[in-house]
Amino acid sequence: MGSTSLAIIHYPVLDKRGDIVSTSINNLEMHDVARSCMTFGLDVCYIVTPLDRQRAIAEQLVDHWRSGYGRRYNPDRAEALKKISIRKALGDVMADFDGLRPVVIGTSSRKRDVSIGYNELKRWIASDPRPFLLLFGTGWGLPPDIVRSCERTLLPINGPGDYNHLSLRVAIGIILDRLFGVRGGPDE
Amino acid sequence: MGSTSLAIIHYPVLDKRGDIVSTSINNLEMHDVARSCMTFGLDVCYIVTPLDRQRAIAEQLVDHWRSGYGRRYNPDRAEALKKISIRKALGDVMADFDGLRPVVIGTSSRKRDVSIGYNELKRWIASDPRPFLLLFGTGWGLPPDIVRSCERTLLPINGPGDYNHLSLRVAIGIILDRLFGVRGGPDE
Repeated sequence: MGSTSLAIIHYPVLDKRGDIVSTSINNLEMHDVARSCMTFGLDVCYIVTPLDRQRAIAEQLVDHWRSGYGRRYNPDRAEALKKISIRKALGDVMADFDGLRPVVIGTSSRKRDVSIGYNELKRWIASDPRPFLLLFGTGWGLPPDIVRSCERTLLPINGPGDYNHLSLRVAIGIILDRLFGVRGGPDE
Repeated sequence: MGSTSLAIIHYPVLDKRGDIVSTSINNLEMHDVARSCMTFGLDVCYIVTPLDRQRAIAEQLVDHWRSGYGRRYNPDRAEALKKISIRKALGDVMADFDGLRPVVIGTSSRKRDVSIGYNELKRWIASDPRPFLLLFGTGWGLPPDIVRSCERTLLPINGPGDYNHLSLRVAIGIILDRLFGVRGGPDE
C-alpha cells in the first residue's frame, strides 16, 4: 500500500470580456480540507493555482496558522495545516513523488465511462505500492484535459434525490471517509 | 419510515470575566449544511441559538439567498436554503413536529455508553414511522444536559490515526452520507 495525496485544482477561465475569472482559495476551506486529510491519513493536500497572488495569500494563511499566532491559538489546526502544500500547476505536483508516477484518480459530479466505485478503489489502493493522487476541481469542476489524463474517475456522490450540489470541502470529506474511514462491525 | 431533520446547536458559555462567548453562525456553513441536507433528503435543517442578534443575522442571510439577489445569482443555493429554519431553543424545535415526539439522536467526537452505529441507525430510521432529529453541537460539542436527553449518540467518525478534529460542516456531510448516501453494488 502506497501513500495517497489529494490536489485541489483552481482553474481560471476567461470571461466574455477577456478577463480572468477564478475561484479563490479561502482560509476556512483550507482548514476544513487539512483537518479532513489529517483525520483520514492523507499524505499531502496540494492546492494548485496558476495565479501568483492567490498562492501568496494561501502561503501567508498557512504560515499564520502553522507558525504564527494561530499555532498558539489552536495547535490542532497547526498540525493539520502541515498537510497543505501550495503549487502553481499539476505538473509541479506530479514531480513531487520522488520520481514515481502516481496513479491519478479524478472526481466528478457525474458518472463517466471510466468511473470507479469506492470499494473498488479502496482495494486498489491497499494492494498497489504506487502513490495515489486524487484530483478535485473547484467551481465548475476539473477542466476536460485534466479529466482525460486521469486513469479513472470516482463515481459521483448521490443521495436519494436528484439534487447533488455538495460543497467541495464537504464532498472531499465524504470521499475520504468512503475510502479511509475506519468502521467496526456491520452495525457501524 | 418517518422524516429526518437535523439541528445545529450554538451553545454560548460564560468566560472567566462573565462575558458570553458563542460560536457564530456563518454564511458559508449555512450554505454547506443546507446543500448537504438537500442532497441527502433531510426534511429541515434547524439552526439554534439563544442570541437574538445571531438569529437576526442568520435570517437576513437566508433571506438574501432565498429571495434576494442571491436567488437570481445562484438558484441551486436558493433551493437548498429553503431547508434552513432558525430557532431560539431546542424546545422550539421539538414543538415543530405536529405534536409527534421525534427520536433524538446526538453526535459526539467520542464514544459513549449509549452509542449507536450508522447501519443500526439507518435500519431504525427505515423501520420507525416517527420523525428523527439529529443533534450537532458547535465549538466544544453538545452541552451535557442535551447529550443526556438524547435517546442514543452516534459513534464518532474515525480515520486510521488518532486525530479527529473534523470541521462540523464536513462531519455533518459524512454522517448524512453514511445514513442516506445511495450507493450501488459492493464495488461502490
